[in-house]
Amino acid sequence: MPSFILVNTCPQTKARAGELTTRHGKVGTPVFLPVGSQGAVKTLTPDEVKELGYKMLLANTYHLYLRPGIDIIEKAGGLHKFMGWEGAILTDSGGYQVFSLSPLRKLSDGGVTFRSHIDGSQHHITAELAIEYQERLGADIIMALDECPAHDDSPAKVKKATERTHRWAERCLKAHKRPDQALYAIVQGGMSIELRRESANYLKSLDFPGYAIGGLSVGEPKEITLAMIEETIACLPENKPRYLMGVGSPEDIVEAVARGCDIFDSALPTRVARNGALFSWEGRKNITNAAYKETESPIVGDCGCYTCRNFSAAYLHHLFSCGELLAYRLATIHNLSFIAELVVKIRDAINDGTFMAFKDEFLASYQPADEPTRLAQKQKWLKRRNLSQ
Amino acid sequence: MPSFILVNTCPQTKARAGELTTRHGKVGTPVFLPVGSQGAVKTLTPDEVKELGYKMLLANTYHLYLRPGIDIIEKAGGLHKFMGWEGAILTDSGGYQVFSLSPLRKLSDGGVTFRSHIDGSQHHITAELAIEYQERLGADIIMALDECPAHDDSPAKVKKATERTHRWAERCLKAHKRPDQALYAIVQGGMSIELRRESANYLKSLDFPGYAIGGLSVGEPKEITLAMIEETIACLPENKPRYLMGVGSPEDIVEAVARGCDIFDSALPTRVARNGALFSWEGRKNITNAAYKETESPIVGDCGCYTCRNFSAAYLHHLFSCGELLAYRLATIHNLSFIAELVVKIRDAINDGTFMAFKDEFLASYQPADEPTRLAQKQKWLKRRNLSQ
Repeated sequence: MPSFILVNTCPQTKARAGELTTRHGKVGTPVFLPVGSQGAVKTLTPDEVKELGYKMLLANTYHLYLRPGIDIIEKAGGLHKFMGWEGAILTDSGGYQVFSLSPLRKLSDGGVTFRSHIDGSQHHITAELAIEYQERLGADIIMALDECPAHDDSPAKVKKATERTHRWAERCLKAHKRPDQALYAIVQGGMSIELRRESANYLKSLDFPGYAIGGLSVGEPKEITLAMIEETIACLPENKPRYLMGVGSPEDIVEAVARGCDIFDSALPTRVARNGALFSWEGRKNITNAAYKETESPIVGDCGCYTCRNFSAAYLHHLFSCGELLAYRLATIHNLSFIAELVVKIRDAINDGTFMAFKDEFLASYQPADEPTRLAQKQKWLKRRNLSQ
Repeated sequence: MPSFILVNTCPQTKARAGELTTRHGKVGTPVFLPVGSQGAVKTLTPDEVKELGYKMLLANTYHLYLRPGIDIIEKAGGLHKFMGWEGAILTDSGGYQVFSLSPLRKLSDGGVTFRSHIDGSQHHITAELAIEYQERLGADIIMALDECPAHDDSPAKVKKATERTHRWAERCLKAHKRPDQALYAIVQGGMSIELRRESANYLKSLDFPGYAIGGLSVGEPKEITLAMIEETIACLPENKPRYLMGVGSPEDIVEAVARGCDIFDSALPTRVARNGALFSWEGRKNITNAAYKETESPIVGDCGCYTCRNFSAAYLHHLFSCGELLAYRLATIHNLSFIAELVVKIRDAINDGTFMAFKDEFLASYQPADEPTRLAQKQKWLKRRNLSQ
C-alpha cells in the first residue's frame, strides 16, 4: 500500500521531487524527518511538530524495545496512538544503535547479542525479530536490520559486514508480512566504491520499495561521504525513494538532494539547538554568545518561526544563561522551523526548475559549522590511510 | 491606578471573592500566581500560561537583577515585553531570596550586602533600590523589602527583623513613585502572635494598597502557619487584598482562602510536577510509580487538561523514565491546570455561597502529600521549643 511517485526532476542535478503515500497521509519529498527516538521529538508536543510543517518523523526500535517495551506500545494500539502522532512514522530497525550505543556482546549471521546501554541487561536481536518488533510498533516505513561498520574498519571487516547486511535484508524481506508498511533495505559498503556498488546492486535485485544509504557521516571527510552517495545512487532504481540515514545539517541536505537523495533524518538540528546553535541563512549563530546579551531583535531577523516572532535574542540568551528549560524548546522550534522551510524551498525549486540556482546561492551564503573540526578530522582520516591530499 | 474591590464574602468562613484591576487587565481573586522567577514559568511559553487561565504571574527581582540585569530588561521596554507576557505581573522585592539563596554578608538598617548565589559577586540592596529596580522592571504589583527570619530564630532576633521590616516598608512607601504600580507591604513577626499583630497593625497604619503575609511555611507545623494567618488577617483591613507568600499546595490554598487570603504564589505545583507528582482530587499521584507503566487511561481520568486529553499515563510514565524534556512540560501543564481549576472552583463557590461545603468536601477527599515528613518536622519543631503536643 505505501508507494512513491516521482513528480519532477532537476535538469542540471540529480535532485528529484516526489511523493510518498502512506496510511498516515501523503508526504512530499525531499523530506526531513525530525528524530523522536524514544517516541517524542525532544521538548516538543506532536501538535507542535505538525504545526512546524512535518508530516513524518523517525522513531527508534532499539530505544522503544528497551523502553517502554514493544508489548506496551502494541497494547496501546501502536506507536502512533501511544505518542499521539497522526502523521507518518519511519522506524529504524535498531541495527545502527546496537552498534553505536550498546556494548556489543556477540555477532553472528544468526543475529546480535547486545547489552542495554541503560541497565546492562542482555538482549538478542535477529533479522526476523527486527521485523516483528517494527510490525508490532506499526510504523509506516520500516528498515531492514543491518550491520554498520565503523568508518575505519579494515576492508575485510567492511566486506563481511556488507555481506551479512545482504543476508539479513533477504531474511527481513521474507519475514515481513504487513502490507500497510513499506520495508526499506539499507545499502552498506563502508568507504569502498566497489562494495557500495555491489551492495546497491544486490539489494536492488531483491526489489525493495525503498533504499536507505547507511554507514555514512560516521567520521569520514565530507568528500568521501558525497562520493559514496553518488556511487550508491548510480546503482539504485530511479522510481524508488532513497533515504540518506543520519544526515541533517542544512548544507549536507542540500548537497545530498543534488545527488538524488529523497529522505533525511538526523538529531543534529534538535541537538545543536539545545546547545544554543541556531540556524540562519548565513550559518549557525550561537545564542550563548555574549554579543546577544542586549540584542532586542530576534536572533534571525526575517525568520517567521514562533520563537523569532515572539522573543528577542536577548531573552533567548537570558534563558540559555539561566538553563531555563524553555530555552531548549524555543531553540528546537527555531531549528526545526528552519529545516522545514529549507526543505520546502528545495522542493519548490525542484518543481520550478530552479534548484541548481537555489543550491548555488544557498551554499554561497551558508557558512558550514565546525570547519576546523571537519578539517582536523579529514587530516586524521587521510593519515590513517597513508594518503595525502 | 491598581485597585481592589471585594465582590462576595463567605457567610461561614472568612473567604472572599474580589477583583484586582491592573494596567494589564482585571484579575479575579482568590488567585494563584505561577512562578516565573527568571522571567519564564519553567518549561512553558507565555501563551500556554495564558491558555491555562492565568492572568497574573510572579517574577523575582533578586533573580532578574542578577541575570540578565535590570538595565537589559528596562531597555527592552520592561519585563512584560522582555518575556512576552501580556497579563499582570507581581514582582517580589528580593528580600526573601537574599536571605534564602545568598550567602549573606552584612545586614543593617541601611540595607543588605549579599553575594550572588550564581557567581559569588558582591551586591548591596536597600529599601530604595528594591523599589527602583521594581519600578524599572515595571511589574503591576511590587513588594516592599523585608527581612524574613528563619522559623527557629530567637524571639529577640525575630523582633529585630520585624521592626527592621517596618522601617524598610516606610522607606519603600516614600521611595515609590510609579502610580501605575501597587506597592504591597509584607507582614512579618515570625511565629509570635504578638509580633504578627504588632506588624499587621503597624503596616496597616501606613495605608498600603495591599498586604502580604511573609515568613510562613518555612518549616513550622501547619497548625502554626494557620494560626499565624488568622492572627495577621484579624488585624488587616477588609478592603485590601491579602497575599500569602510562597504557599501553593492545593490543601494549603483552600485552608488559607477560608482564613481570608486572596493571592497566592508558589513554585510547588511546577516543582513537584517536574519530580513526577501530579495533582488529582484525591491527592498527588506519582507518575514514576511502576503501576502506571501500562495504564492506557490518562493519569487523572476526568481531567480536561491538554496532557490528560492527549496522553496516557503509560506514555507520561515512559517519558519520565527516559528523562525526556517533554515529560516535565506535560506534567507542569497538568499541575498548573489543576490549580487553575481549583481556584476557579473556589471563586465560584464563594460567589455561590457554597464555599464551606466545597472546602469540607475537598479536604475530605484530598490526601495531603508528605504527611510523614510534616509529622516528623512538627515533632522536631515542638522538641526544639521544649513543648509537647
